[in-house]
Amino acid sequence: MASSQGKDPGRVRLSDVAAVAGVSLSTASKALNDGERISEETVARVREAAERLDFQPNALARSFALGRSRTIGVLTHRAASTFAGPVLIGVVLELGTLQQASLVYDENLLVHREITSSIRELRARHIDGLIVVGDGHEHVSPSMSHLFTVPVTYVFAATDRAEDITYLPDNEMAGRLATRHLIERGRTRIAHITSDPESLAVRLRARGMQHELDEAGLQLVGPVRYGTWFQNWGVEAMTELLDSGADVDAVFCGNDHLALGALQVCEARGLRVPDDIAIVGVDNWEGIILDQGVRRLTTVDLRLQMLGRTAAADVIATNRVPGEHLVEPVLVPGPSS
Amino acid sequence: MASSQGKDPGRVRLSDVAAVAGVSLSTASKALNDGERISEETVARVREAAERLDFQPNALARSFALGRSRTIGVLTHRAASTFAGPVLIGVVLELGTLQQASLVYDENLLVHREITSSIRELRARHIDGLIVVGDGHEHVSPSMSHLFTVPVTYVFAATDRAEDITYLPDNEMAGRLATRHLIERGRTRIAHITSDPESLAVRLRARGMQHELDEAGLQLVGPVRYGTWFQNWGVEAMTELLDSGADVDAVFCGNDHLALGALQVCEARGLRVPDDIAIVGVDNWEGIILDQGVRRLTTVDLRLQMLGRTAAADVIATNRVPGEHLVEPVLVPGPSS
Repeated sequence: MASSQGKDPGRVRLSDVAAVAGVSLSTASKALNDGERISEETVARVREAAERLDFQPNALARSFALGRSRTIGVLTHRAASTFAGPVLIGVVLELGTLQQASLVYDENLLVHREITSSIRELRARHIDGLIVVGDGHEHVSPSMSHLFTVPVTYVFAATDRAEDITYLPDNEMAGRLATRHLIERGRTRIAHITSDPESLAVRLRARGMQHELDEAGLQLVGPVRYGTWFQNWGVEAMTELLDSGADVDAVFCGNDHLALGALQVCEARGLRVPDDIAIVGVDNWEGIILDQGVRRLTTVDLRLQMLGRTAAADVIATNRVPGEHLVEPVLVPGPSS
Repeated sequence: MASSQGKDPGRVRLSDVAAVAGVSLSTASKALNDGERISEETVARVREAAERLDFQPNALARSFALGRSRTIGVLTHRAASTFAGPVLIGVVLELGTLQQASLVYDENLLVHREITSSIRELRARHIDGLIVVGDGHEHVSPSMSHLFTVPVTYVFAATDRAEDITYLPDNEMAGRLATRHLIERGRTRIAHITSDPESLAVRLRARGMQHELDEAGLQLVGPVRYGTWFQNWGVEAMTELLDSGADVDAVFCGNDHLALGALQVCEARGLRVPDDIAIVGVDNWEGIILDQGVRRLTTVDLRLQMLGRTAAADVIATNRVPGEHLVEPVLVPGPSS
């Protein structure tokens, strides 16, 4: 199935452009490429002719001449997972916007210390850069940067090499944004329901919350209620919290499932949300927090697709900065606060 | 940020392979490419040398020589949507497996009657084929095939040109699989709760159900309860169904949200699921049907990622068949049936 575009009889050739501009083929080529040793006036005339004729340069030939493939390798780890999926989509969409093709391989990144057939293939394709899409930063992946001579950018992944360029969601800022929002809404008695403290995301979100409480001179209505990421735990923890008789006017929940569980308990007990108690989640997972198309929760969106887009822009940028880079989340207001 | 691989001093060159195999450079090249006019023994010797030295052919140069870019254009429409996302992920992963790069543009496909800058860029890149990823087949998109001289495959999209190659989920089969499963479980009094009959997916799933009921000589416990895709409608319709006093031992719900609503009503009324009443949904959307990691529902998975993979394989296949192609869903058993 070879491309037949080269034989397209209607195709405008560089010789057509040269004829219309009244210059030689080599002058037309120089005018459309580097413009070296050609008068500005000639360059302008050739470019105008090219535009008028809708001349489409042969990008493949040009890439080959420049030694660039305009192709970025993308190595993913469980690309179809709930959270890595939007990151990968952001990566390939942004690369498209930047006129870069994506060559995507799904692998088990945790064993990637040696040269696999995917890595061999990526090298053979002369990729201009590599993006490694992880499955969150709970696990540290072995660095692969030494296996490539082109720029490597990691996204939604942590590596064991400090100089690697990594892009991660800002979980601490998620905790800060949620808490700051509640404080701005006049809440002073705020509790926290979240998942397992073994999770880095849990610890960072809790730390961000504590930071904002400290700045406002407020005390957490403690203790932090650690459990799982599931809605049942939101129900259980909220029930415990209310049964404890704690004086509470807001709850920051570690994700939207927990927030929905907390909301369910409040509604069942006849508490008014947000008048009696405000609730904020994390994830902005529209599949669960929209009800008949209407938003049920205030939440924090980690902007996973934007995370992928940012990493994609980085890998072809000229001024790349080693180390960890955080992409800011946004607070998405809803009726629960 | 040019690739530096061409200058890699440790890189094994074709001349190294030729030297080890004891043949000329041009013989080595022919042996690794078409093998024409070279003895089988020489071909084997050169290939063995190439393997031993871990020779990586310059795929970029070879593509250029063959007039192929090994790049497939991908035009998406709202790529980040709940259902189109997995299709796009399947497309780019399968293209990677097939050693094809993806050049992805997100556009409003419904206005694509003319040549846009994306289409111009895709042509300039000499793509070997184009995959158009739609957002379901509820809307018919204008065909774009005439804008390209390379193969075009549509996925999760319907077009206005019968000869176009389109890949769609098999919604009728989803209705059949769910109903057949309930009948095999001994159910004979089956009702249907679903969304708006304006939706093609709704009509096809209902038709598949009716087909299986007819084959088994069963009557639908009717009428079909049409409403929305949201859980609230599942609650309301299930309440109506039970209040009507209908003799019912199973409900096929048009999606998982509706099935969860129906399940909630049964549980609240003390009905045993599946002993008293069995429930089956559609979508296998793990974000909502897993509870603490445990599956709550029997459902039908439309295999959207596989749909994307199938379309990706099609666009570079040699024997492509015009018209509509359906990808079979699978029944995913759970505790509700």
